[in-house]
Amino acid sequence: MFAVEVSDQIMIAHSFRGAVFGPAQQLHGATFVLRAAFMSDRLDDNGIVVDIGRAQEVLKATLVPLNYRNLDDLPQFKGVNTTTEFVTKYVFDRLAEAARAGQLGRNPNELKAIRITVLESPSASAWYEAPL
Amino acid sequence: MFAVEVSDQIMIAHSFRGAVFGPAQQLHGATFVLRAAFMSDRLDDNGIVVDIGRAQEVLKATLVPLNYRNLDDLPQFKGVNTTTEFVTKYVFDRLAEAARAGQLGRNPNELKAIRITVLESPSASAWYEAPL
Amino acid sequence: MFAVEVSDQIMIAHSFRGAVFGPAQQLHGATFVLRAAFMSDRLDDNGIVVDIGRAQEVLKATLVPLNYRNLDDLPQFKGVNTTTEFVTKYVFDRLAEAARAGQLGRNPNELKAIRITVLESPSASAWYEAPL
Amino acid sequence: MFAVEVSDQIMIAHSFRGAVFGPAQQLHGATFVLRAAFMSDRLDDNGIVVDIGRAQEVLKATLVPLNYRNLDDLPQFKGVNTTTEFVTKYVFDRLAEAARAGQLGRNPNELKAIRITVLESPSASAWYEAPL
Amino acid sequence: MFAVEVSDQIMIAHSFRGAVFGPAQQLHGATFVLRAAFMSDRLDDNGIVVDIGRAQEVLKATLVPLNYRNLDDLPQFKGVNTTTEFVTKYVFDRLAEAARAGQLGRNPNELKAIRITVLESPSASAWYEAPL
Amino acid sequence: MFAVEVSDQIMIAHSFRGAVFGPAQQLHGATFVLRAAFMSDRLDDNGIVVDIGRAQEVLKATLVPLNYRNLDDLPQFKGVNTTTEFVTKYVFDRLAEAARAGQLGRNPNELKAIRITVLESPSASAWYEAPL
Repeated sequence: MFAVEVSDQIMIAHSFRGAVFGPAQQLHGATFVLRAAFMSDRLDDNGIVVDIGRAQEVLKATLVPLNYRNLDDLPQFKGVNTTTEFVTKYVFDRLAEAARAGQLGRNPNELKAIRITVLESPSASAWYEAPL
Repeated sequence: MFAVEVSDQIMIAHSFRGAVFGPAQQLHGATFVLRAAFMSDRLDDNGIVVDIGRAQEVLKATLVPLNYRNLDDLPQFKGVNTTTEFVTKYVFDRLAEAARAGQLGRNPNELKAIRITVLESPSASAWYEAPL
Repeated sequence: MFAVEVSDQIMIAHSFRGAVFGPAQQLHGATFVLRAAFMSDRLDDNGIVVDIGRAQEVLKATLVPLNYRNLDDLPQFKGVNTTTEFVTKYVFDRLAEAARAGQLGRNPNELKAIRITVLESPSASAWYEAPL
Repeated sequence: MFAVEVSDQIMIAHSFRGAVFGPAQQLHGATFVLRAAFMSDRLDDNGIVVDIGRAQEVLKATLVPLNYRNLDDLPQFKGVNTTTEFVTKYVFDRLAEAARAGQLGRNPNELKAIRITVLESPSASAWYEAPL
Repeated sequence: MFAVEVSDQIMIAHSFRGAVFGPAQQLHGATFVLRAAFMSDRLDDNGIVVDIGRAQEVLKATLVPLNYRNLDDLPQFKGVNTTTEFVTKYVFDRLAEAARAGQLGRNPNELKAIRITVLESPSASAWYEAPL
Repeated sequence: MFAVEVSDQIMIAHSFRGAVFGPAQQLHGATFVLRAAFMSDRLDDNGIVVDIGRAQEVLKATLVPLNYRNLDDLPQFKGVNTTTEFVTKYVFDRLAEAARAGQLGRNPNELKAIRITVLESPSASAWYEAPL
């Protein structure tokens, strides 16, 4: 299996509900470094999985509505804890939509899976990987 | 599949037996940066795989008996080469026990796998991954 | 000149006032990775600048009141933009006080300078360095 | 599954054919950081997957013919785009040959898979993983 | 002294003349990760050295003419070895011009120095620092 | 001022004497990542401070006698704590000797300073910088 991975970052505020989160129940924030990996079992005629530049553009477009925002204020996140894990799946869903819509410039049938990794600090990260 | 990964580090001495190890047969040491990834196919009601803070505590508790020690002197390692690979499996076994005992705060049946990565230097690492 | 540098991190929310900040005028957040370097022109009798463990404790104690907080809400930051640069100087001032009070375990007269580096993302950082 | 991963790097020039590559159709270059992971489901009698030192030597030997070269000039790459993805597979094939020839010092039947990762910049990478 | 540092990267080809360079006399290439640090002894009324976003734009504008190019072909580099050291000074000169022309949004008299760091690989880098 | 920095690493065992070291008084070890920076106020006729390849060889030659050793056993370290700080100065002295002996291929009068950085873990490092 081949994979191409690109990365970008956002700076967001949010708070969590639930005693398990301790001090993170307070309004705080994070720099989320996001990596998006696209997987295919063969390269296209150009010798690529997807164009790295295009993948970076699609990832950035997905992140613009979140960047420099308080996620608690965004209607799409009402009533959910926007944990690092949740963000991996949210970005996965957006990129899966983009992939199926052909926005990555590769036949969607030839893209097998996507993995989204979110690094919240040097000592903690999360990822979500699923077939397309 | 979702995963959450936390990291910590230890500074240990050890030596290896076997001609394949060359100069590493001498007593030397390493900073081992350890990453522990916990995997689940769904998030719990809080929107997490496991609590990152608790995962860091469990990892640290596992490492305390090894940190600042000569592994050659520890009874649990008598007669074995405490290679980077060996350490991945040793820490895996301890964290698997903790997970099954509920110490990670997640129903053990909902944790599917653990992966332990050990980075011994910028140019060499090892990992062990297995189902729970 | 010798230096010893330790690091830690905080996750904070804040907003900025001033058109120059563009979208960062909105409430957002950051993971700040902080590095504190202590400088001396000679080592003490133990062969150290300051004890690394103690330096890490002093740095962490300085950061606890900021971690998991919205800096806009903290009285000590009323009316200021808590920019990355500002945070470098704020932490410098706290660590300089700690150094002068002997909390680092080294004669304050033998510590020459402190440098605080704050990394807000993989592509942006700031630092402040001054004599003690 | 156990894995051991070693890394090395090369500095190469090349150009791409195909409108999708935009400015990368021009002759340019890259520092490729290569990571080679060798996987096995059990450790050998020494407690290792493969010897890290030997793995580093085999990886370096594979890279010497590419390092400090214009890949467009090399006969083995005539008519292909030497994309990051392509390079992952090319190095995989060389290391798979080495593994099957016993050059890694481990019974080839006991090595299950190889993964080659190529980092072309802090924000883009590719990998190829396949069974042996 | 305060500093703000931003980073970007380019992928270039080049070759060197001089026996000291050994195999690097051949046409090869590099990913250059560039960091530009701007220094000032006081923050402006917004609490910054320079706006990070604007600094990133100015750095990127400086790099566009070099990115995805063979530096041997560029008229401004005729007859010089475009070593990592040379590139640090070349980018310094461009950013010093931009700073003096007010393009960084800060009074040039209040910017004291610039440091340009170029990382050519995980094991080699260069920098140039000088007053403005 | 120009600088060129190269890096390498060693894996050593050692122990410390002095209550300040707490558990590090036990025999333990470390991976020390060493960076050596050579500084000059002008480039030579080849456009370099020193040749990166030669600098890497000189650094490695300096480290060979320490690598894979218990520093407590080495006669040159009898009666000293081989702290991270101590190691920065020890390597500085060896590289300063090499520089003055012309082993770096640059006129010693044109090398102004050397800085040695030792990273002992992701969260702690030390450096020593002095004129030549």
